[in-house]
Amino acid sequence: MLNTIFTHRSIRKYKPDAVAPDLLDKILEAGTRASTTGNMQVYSMIVSTGEEIRKQLWEQHFKQNMVLEAPVHITFCADLNRFEKWCRRREAEPGYRNFLWFLNAATDALLASQNVCLAAEAHGLGICYLGTAVYNADRLIEILKLPEGVIPVAAIVMGYPAENPGLTDRLPMEAVVHREKYEDYDPQRIDRLYREKESLDATRELLEMNNKPNLAQIFTDLRYTKKDNEFFSGKLIELLKKQGFLP
Amino acid sequence: MLNTIFTHRSIRKYKPDAVAPDLLDKILEAGTRASTTGNMQVYSMIVSTGEEIRKQLWEQHFKQNMVLEAPVHITFCADLNRFEKWCRRREAEPGYRNFLWFLNAATDALLASQNVCLAAEAHGLGICYLGTAVYNADRLIEILKLPEGVIPVAAIVMGYPAENPGLTDRLPMEAVVHREKYEDYDPQRIDRLYREKESLDATRELLEMNNKPNLAQIFTDLRYTKKDNEFFSGKLIELLKKQGFLP
Repeated sequence: MLNTIFTHRSIRKYKPDAVAPDLLDKILEAGTRASTTGNMQVYSMIVSTGEEIRKQLWEQHFKQNMVLEAPVHITFCADLNRFEKWCRRREAEPGYRNFLWFLNAATDALLASQNVCLAAEAHGLGICYLGTAVYNADRLIEILKLPEGVIPVAAIVMGYPAENPGLTDRLPMEAVVHREKYEDYDPQRIDRLYREKESLDATRELLEMNNKPNLAQIFTDLRYTKKDNEFFSGKLIELLKKQGFLP
Repeated sequence: MLNTIFTHRSIRKYKPDAVAPDLLDKILEAGTRASTTGNMQVYSMIVSTGEEIRKQLWEQHFKQNMVLEAPVHITFCADLNRFEKWCRRREAEPGYRNFLWFLNAATDALLASQNVCLAAEAHGLGICYLGTAVYNADRLIEILKLPEGVIPVAAIVMGYPAENPGLTDRLPMEAVVHREKYEDYDPQRIDRLYREKESLDATRELLEMNNKPNLAQIFTDLRYTKKDNEFFSGKLIELLKKQGFLP
């Protein structure tokens, strides 16, 4: 377990080999063993292996190569639909179309997703999260035929790795861990915590290539710009409003 | 790894034994190896072990006994504060006070939390998620001195188990797994998927004790009522608006 956790790397190149159905089922079952709000299991996992549908998904995930390459694509969804249908069938009036339950259901989906990833990696498979699942959630809903009450919150690709990258750098532990209460960051501490990341060779190459003075501006000006962030936020909020998860 | 995942149970009774600091650090480090959006690590883990602060947290987590009992309490937060401070220090203008980035940061926090839980369990510790972290997020912010841009999204208690419960029941796999696309549920399928859960001895006892005709009504009328859900949703939305994560 610990070895699997500590050797995790996102895999972006895959062999064409399929994942055996029995193995895939076992991995999905690992997802169902994660904690879930009130044992309500308000999430769903959509497992897409067909070429045509994976191509449609690839288009929505900004055409990243690995999405075409990897034989398995799983979309993890916050899902109140099933639970509400059960309630109505039992003459119980569900009160879950609100923001609290979107968040609870998203949490269920994300904990399940992490179990699935670790189980896959324990079996020698590679995975990569697609942050883009929430960017084009509206289009994923169409492609995957998600009914009202079901919102994609994460997606992964999975398959046998065709690369063996090193571990990704992380901030020092003291950057993300606080003892007892939150200890806010002063400028000197910020400098210290980001020093190693900023002085990596990969960072220097990135700055040269993009003609930028520092790594922070790579994030704000190129990777995740305010304009894009606000555009995709707007789409998400619209979606949640339409389905009653936001007023 | 797989054994740890498949034997997970929430632990609600704890021995008073402390968790050794080195072990705790190793477990927290496991959290940092989880996937994170753009390797930005927009989350924080607040580790509270002091009795006084755990008592304050216990009050906000609806005074559940295990919160007082367990020697370790970890609050996982969506955290844009550190990243924004770094950006500003580098003359980069961050554009992350929007809903997309609340969700990205919450995702980072939740994936890290699941790694922490599994690492703890691999070391013989027990954990329990506290769904209540988002209910009284406003009060947790006060107690833990969270600055703007930092929102609690999950909390766990951790310690050496003083009970050995069986696995919790789950719906059949076909309830939560969809192949290729979503296959919506008709009434007969709902009946079939919930049959086992509805016929458990524990369910029957629950219905008798609460004088309710079925399990669904236990959820809607007693455990998670529309009125409570809407109240706590309102508080959460207020909080996100105040900090610019919702318009």
